[in-house]
Amino acid sequence: MSDLQALTLRYRKFSLDRDWGRFHDPRSLILALVGEVGELAELYQWSDPQVESRSNPDSPLHQRSAEEISDVLLYLIRLADVLGIDPIDAANRKLDSAEKRFPVDQYLGRAPDKTQVQ
Amino acid sequence: MSDLQALTLRYRKFSLDRDWGRFHDPRSLILALVGEVGELAELYQWSDPQVESRSNPDSPLHQRSAEEISDVLLYLIRLADVLGIDPIDAANRKLDSAEKRFPVDQYLGRAPDKTQVQ
Amino acid sequence: MSDLQALTLRYRKFSLDRDWGRFHDPRSLILALVGEVGELAELYQWSDPQVESRSNPDSPLHQRSAEEISDVLLYLIRLADVLGIDPIDAANRKLDSAEKRFPVDQYLGRAPDKTQVQ
Amino acid sequence: MSDLQALTLRYRKFSLDRDWGRFHDPRSLILALVGEVGELAELYQWSDPQVESRSNPDSPLHQRSAEEISDVLLYLIRLADVLGIDPIDAANRKLDSAEKRFPVDQYLGRAPDKTQVQ
Repeated sequence: MSDLQALTLRYRKFSLDRDWGRFHDPRSLILALVGEVGELAELYQWSDPQVESRSNPDSPLHQRSAEEISDVLLYLIRLADVLGIDPIDAANRKLDSAEKRFPVDQYLGRAPDKTQVQ
Repeated sequence: MSDLQALTLRYRKFSLDRDWGRFHDPRSLILALVGEVGELAELYQWSDPQVESRSNPDSPLHQRSAEEISDVLLYLIRLADVLGIDPIDAANRKLDSAEKRFPVDQYLGRAPDKTQVQ
Repeated sequence: MSDLQALTLRYRKFSLDRDWGRFHDPRSLILALVGEVGELAELYQWSDPQVESRSNPDSPLHQRSAEEISDVLLYLIRLADVLGIDPIDAANRKLDSAEKRFPVDQYLGRAPDKTQVQ
Repeated sequence: MSDLQALTLRYRKFSLDRDWGRFHDPRSLILALVGEVGELAELYQWSDPQVESRSNPDSPLHQRSAEEISDVLLYLIRLADVLGIDPIDAANRKLDSAEKRFPVDQYLGRAPDKTQVQ
């Protein structure tokens, strides 16, 4: 069993033990995920003079970032679990298609233009 | 090597091959993540009569959900990679503390009240 | 002067008085907005037995909702101000086009299908 | 009647005409709002060489920004309408308290530290 699967099963058990499974419909989990993404965004919302401290694992910003990334990851894999989606498989398929969609020679050093793409 | 680490390294290589690493500062990655979370939210924004179809892996909703979950996961692990954070470790530490913070006997069937907590 | 313009000018002055204008580039304001949207989402993340209390202006949920909606609105009009956008004009143009895009007879009681639209 | 109230009433009528009011419960509106915030974030997700073009009202970025800001504003005032909240009043109260919470002499040129505040 992979480590992400193990984490998914651990969180599933945590939820079942508390009978929280019934709160974990997709819409509720997405709203909860949005809450955690908001906390992550807040950490980086103002201009960033703390660049150096970020690589320092003891800095408050590094520790808070790790916590918020965890919270987002946990709700995301719980959502995938509830929907019966294997996120690693799905993400690898996404990279398969991204590799074709953005050929190295056309996109070297150039980000896709979002004002044109959509 | 775990499967999430393998995915992280694959995405890192994908980024380096296109010289996109320089776009991948934390703020840019968080904004990109927010864009994907928005697409995920859109799928579930209106009331949900498609409950059955969700478990059907061939339904459009299931397939779109898998894609958007992938996109969120990819930006999230890229952010963790850039910040030097191991998301599996961090999430397991989060669950360690959640297990203590929400004892089964006090929180059985009861979600924490967000209007009081904060 | 309209009340939204008055609010915009009040917030502009609040920012200038504290020399916070230099933090208010578009990316920073969007990240701040995301933080507030996260707090709004958190209030409604779990299933909602508090429907009645919502209409009661003294309920904690009502008061917290008003605060978070304010926070989102303030960052949104600050962003529009920084970008030189009149949000009321722009929103009225949006409704002009929505009225054409979604004719009453075709969309009566039917939400646009997000799994097909995109 | 103020222009934001007029916009609120226009959007209310637009919704009622299509019988979309029944989709507009708070959770649905917040998810829809998140979708639009995601589209706004996408426009600014990569580093921003288009600073000049932003002030040009004919640039694609300016026009797309106006559209996404409108979409966020419309869902936000619809949510406030459904909840019975006056967003202008609430935002003015927020600024009242922000003016006290962040005295000019203590916060001149200094953003609140989000890694400490929470």
